[in-house]
Amino acid sequence: MIGRCSYHNLSPSPYQGEGDKGGEVTKYPLKQLAVLGSTGSIGQQTLEVVRALPHRFHIVGLAAGKNIDLLAKQINEFKPRFVYYQDKKAQARLANAEYEVLSLEDIARHPQVDTVVIATSGKTGLSPTLAAVKAGKKVALANKESLVMAGEIITNEAKLNKAQIMPIDSEHSAIWQCIKGETQPAARLILTASGGPFHHYSSAQLKGVTAKQALSHPSWRMGRKVTIDSATLMNKGLEVIEAHWLFDMPFDNIKVLIHPQSIVHSMVEFIDGSIKAQLSYPDMRLPIQYALSYPERLPNPQLPRLDWDSINNLTFEQPDLDTFPCLRLAIEAGKKGGTYPAVLCAADEVAVELFLSERIKFVDIASLIEQALEWHQVIAHPTLDEIMMADAWARQKVLQLTTGDNP
Amino acid sequence: MIGRCSYHNLSPSPYQGEGDKGGEVTKYPLKQLAVLGSTGSIGQQTLEVVRALPHRFHIVGLAAGKNIDLLAKQINEFKPRFVYYQDKKAQARLANAEYEVLSLEDIARHPQVDTVVIATSGKTGLSPTLAAVKAGKKVALANKESLVMAGEIITNEAKLNKAQIMPIDSEHSAIWQCIKGETQPAARLILTASGGPFHHYSSAQLKGVTAKQALSHPSWRMGRKVTIDSATLMNKGLEVIEAHWLFDMPFDNIKVLIHPQSIVHSMVEFIDGSIKAQLSYPDMRLPIQYALSYPERLPNPQLPRLDWDSINNLTFEQPDLDTFPCLRLAIEAGKKGGTYPAVLCAADEVAVELFLSERIKFVDIASLIEQALEWHQVIAHPTLDEIMMADAWARQKVLQLTTGDNP
Repeated sequence: MIGRCSYHNLSPSPYQGEGDKGGEVTKYPLKQLAVLGSTGSIGQQTLEVVRALPHRFHIVGLAAGKNIDLLAKQINEFKPRFVYYQDKKAQARLANAEYEVLSLEDIARHPQVDTVVIATSGKTGLSPTLAAVKAGKKVALANKESLVMAGEIITNEAKLNKAQIMPIDSEHSAIWQCIKGETQPAARLILTASGGPFHHYSSAQLKGVTAKQALSHPSWRMGRKVTIDSATLMNKGLEVIEAHWLFDMPFDNIKVLIHPQSIVHSMVEFIDGSIKAQLSYPDMRLPIQYALSYPERLPNPQLPRLDWDSINNLTFEQPDLDTFPCLRLAIEAGKKGGTYPAVLCAADEVAVELFLSERIKFVDIASLIEQALEWHQVIAHPTLDEIMMADAWARQKVLQLTTGDNP
Repeated sequence: MIGRCSYHNLSPSPYQGEGDKGGEVTKYPLKQLAVLGSTGSIGQQTLEVVRALPHRFHIVGLAAGKNIDLLAKQINEFKPRFVYYQDKKAQARLANAEYEVLSLEDIARHPQVDTVVIATSGKTGLSPTLAAVKAGKKVALANKESLVMAGEIITNEAKLNKAQIMPIDSEHSAIWQCIKGETQPAARLILTASGGPFHHYSSAQLKGVTAKQALSHPSWRMGRKVTIDSATLMNKGLEVIEAHWLFDMPFDNIKVLIHPQSIVHSMVEFIDGSIKAQLSYPDMRLPIQYALSYPERLPNPQLPRLDWDSINNLTFEQPDLDTFPCLRLAIEAGKKGGTYPAVLCAADEVAVELFLSERIKFVDIASLIEQALEWHQVIAHPTLDEIMMADAWARQKVLQLTTGDNP
């Protein structure tokens, strides 16, 4: 493209595929990955990407919570050097001289690890994210809670230690792809939301919905917690806070649009009014692969392509903040800052668990979070300990509120 | 964004606006522009952009065809150093010691010109485009015919002389914006088309349409020739050929989609299946400004923003190549190459004129072009003279075909 519209210099060999001749210098060495949360939805899809592109990615670390059966299979297949499992009863079963059992944090900062995929759900992700960032790693981040709870600390440490946070969420990946190559900051971010299974439900209709209904997401294949968060729009609220930290964008310049087809994953508006959007078939393996391969893109025949013969309509609507108050609560907590977002996260985590175990109704999720936020005594620029204390306080508070005990 | 998602280095002062303090070093000097075709639709809109951003752009050259009244006003306002006008009768009226009258080519290659805006319509743009490219200028190209007729010559000369061609067409600007910062070539281009005023018309319905109907474009403000070309879809066909040359993309990897809202201006698919799209309110001043300000973006309050409160539906359809054969004819001519695209352009220009003067029907435009292409004896890698001869031959051929004389 020299002399015409400029590409950057083209890579002569876009990837080290099977066709590569022996003896050639490999431009792209294998990336050494640790996948924390390897048995969850994002973790499993990360391993699918690694399986599809074995010439480019190599697993050195795997970590899981309680799904020991699957972890054992993954260890057998990928032969990692470092392993973590939360369930200590598995010790006898998983004992093996071929790998070392380390803490999440020690895997995250290990010198043999290039890129840490944080695919754990909930606050478990926070501490290894911080460890990875402090060690200056590339951090492929799927865990929302890390940035929501401790955005200020993590982004400061990333700057200090030249760590790079690479978003795995489809929305943030879309934004990241759209700002690539732009020499000036974005003017506005437009996050799209599928609207979840209860899009267009009235408040009255929402009162009767069950966990099973809430778990049937119309377009994405995701874990249980994030699926419920999608139904309440809390997921989008957490993403607004994440976007604020990832892209250094004021809350007032982050807009949410409901886009039920989940084809446009987000958009960026620039200072001249031009907007870029990223589109794809809704499949988390694409943003996962992009975070792992960045700044390159890799061909992967397993990734589905958009079929423009079957797409004829992309719709966009304003979110209904009255019927789905979680989005409003999240944006307010994000704007107020301090320990509020940690309380939001923790209260949501407990409330979603209570809903899934059928102890509260769907609409109670928002009301419990709102009450926790109202009761909370905020700390403006909290330390990690203070964030953890706010988290513990909020969990207890939601349980108290549920059992009806007045504190 | 250091340590987080990476922007390129941010410009400390995105533009030299009115707020700039005297005495500061100006990072961005005034760009010296020549606008060829300044009285046409694109030319006038280019001057609107210059008027809105006088700190960044300065007019050194203006050139027009026959609209001498408007050219005189423009000369009075912008005080260019170099002027061209086609209508020699205007000589006495425009005589002025303050500027020099030069040929289009001499303006295009003048050392005092940084960026040449080629906003002439038809084959008039070809020779000054070539002059600008040979002089290694930045060429903001709105004229389709240059690349369609002589894509091989112009892109080779651009490479040789390190000239940069910056597309002004909204579709090519969209593609150019989407590939910015990408390190690997695009896999596929998706050009959008409004479908024009006769979208969904049947072949039978098309037989009766008038020039007035064809001139009512639903979404864009454009000149007469390009408005008719939009109605026949020839415009999109010419853009496919342009995209082939501008982005070095095989014809089979360029797709056209009908998108009546004219909000998504085009899309690029990458090797991982990810797609980027560029969106904006349909206003040519945005791609004009982007071509002039590239690689920067500039805030311009006059440019309308997309209002997501009023956009709720973006639709996409396959083009109907049977009812609108001009698109098919153009792609075929582009694939065959040689002098075929020049014949396509010339035959179209004459046929559109005949339609506008009510001498032929709307559906005759395609049929005349098809016949001209069938009669043509192609030259594979033509010189500029051979292209001009093919052009002249095609014009005569269409007239012959219209008057019924057998050649």
